Amino acid sequence: MPPEVRVIGVEGMPELTNGDDLAGLMMDAAQAQGTPIEDGDVLVVTQKVVSKVEGKVVKFSDVEASPLAIAVTEGHRRDPRHTEWILRESKRVVRMDRGVIICETKHGFYCANAGIDASNIPGDDTLALLPDDSDASARGIRKAVKDRLGVEVAVIVSDTFGRPWRNGATDVAIGVAGLDPIHSYVGQMDSHGHEMFTTEIAVADELAAAGELVGGKVAGVPVSIIRGYDYIRLEDASIQRILRGSEKDLFR
Amino acid sequence: MPPEVRVIGVEGMPELTNGDDLAGLMMDAAQAQGTPIEDGDVLVVTQKVVSKVEGKVVKFSDVEASPLAIAVTEGHRRDPRHTEWILRESKRVVRMDRGVIICETKHGFYCANAGIDASNIPGDDTLALLPDDSDASARGIRKAVKDRLGVEVAVIVSDTFGRPWRNGATDVAIGVAGLDPIHSYVGQMDSHGHEMFTTEIAVADELAAAGELVGGKVAGVPVSIIRGYDYIRLEDASIQRILRGSEKDLFR
Repeated sequence: MPPEVRVIGVEGMPELTNGDDLAGLMMDAAQAQGTPIEDGDVLVVTQKVVSKVEGKVVKFSDVEASPLAIAVTEGHRRDPRHTEWILRESKRVVRMDRGVIICETKHGFYCANAGIDASNIPGDDTLALLPDDSDASARGIRKAVKDRLGVEVAVIVSDTFGRPWRNGATDVAIGVAGLDPIHSYVGQMDSHGHEMFTTEIAVADELAAAGELVGGKVAGVPVSIIRGYDYIRLEDASIQRILRGSEKDLFR
Repeated sequence: MPPEVRVIGVEGMPELTNGDDLAGLMMDAAQAQGTPIEDGDVLVVTQKVVSKVEGKVVKFSDVEASPLAIAVTEGHRRDPRHTEWILRESKRVVRMDRGVIICETKHGFYCANAGIDASNIPGDDTLALLPDDSDASARGIRKAVKDRLGVEVAVIVSDTFGRPWRNGATDVAIGVAGLDPIHSYVGQMDSHGHEMFTTEIAVADELAAAGELVGGKVAGVPVSIIRGYDYIRLEDASIQRILRGSEKDLFR
């Protein structure tokens, strides 16, 4: 049998709101569409639904725009109070130019606009912030699946981030549970017997990207099941293993 | 039926060398393992095998290390002639620090070490350079599949690139044929009727990442078939659409 990985979108989940049982609803929906969650699956859950059930949805009118937020936004389409939220979710501004704000968020992510956006949430003046601790969100879903179905899964909370040098965003991991987010080949031999000194693959980001292929931005598929991928099980996994830390980075 | 994408690794291909019929061999291998290439497939072909069949394998001894190459490499494990090859494949050094060289390659890619590496090729003093024109490589494979099997496929040439801010590398596209590498949602409405102003997804990079999940670095799976992904067909596709160009970038 050739190696094969399946990426299955989970459809039919309801619009979610603060306090909803996300894990339960995704198990129900997967079951209802004939693809119940199985041992060894990787569940890729998009950040937006995690933020919704965790109550991380805010209104423009919850804040007043600071002079900096007003100045930065001038001449751009964004509401200055939206910009204010971006600044409040950041611990460092990495670049601020032509209306673009690249932040280091308070969670340690480098991304545009502190990961805040207004798409796919109800209301004209609402924004979804990132979850406070996406690793904990992932762990909670993993535990709920174990408790109800008795199976071990890995969980990735994903978000759509841009990146330097390349147009277009891709989905990456912002929280993980149950798998090592990096597959290290350091010290292993390649196919010709040479030691591979430096190769480390961010498999959690590749899994998040694969999950996006069945999700899409308008399709109402907030969860993907990745089946058949032989990940490295790790009980105390954390996205911190992927976050480089600004002191080691050449592009801070 | 829930949305599903399959990622199938192509095993059983021989060690490749200059002049080999890569497209023919991958069609043979896919057929032999019971997963013949079908209309609408995306073929993800890793750069290393493309470089091999195109003769982009060089030896350390083909060059003499310049004083800069010697100085940069001092105290690091790399052969200075390897560094010389990196400099020769670059049109700009973006960062050069602690043995790390981030280049803009002559093809326009931003990556470490000009995309050159020594793993998975025979010999102790050999290096694989990037293909001269990976779009042309992808187009050639696409045409060969059309000519022999009569089916339309998309082809992505992939390579493993690191990135700022996040540990671990991921596979990205360096050449494309037959599909739009970016899926733009600009102007479309989201699930709540809001216009999505800025969302563009680099689907070619996500497909490359998905392809890596069945490949791996030591597994001898240089080609993946991605089946069931509804890509945007585009006859004159090019990776240039993903390359931002340094004049627009905040991290040059």
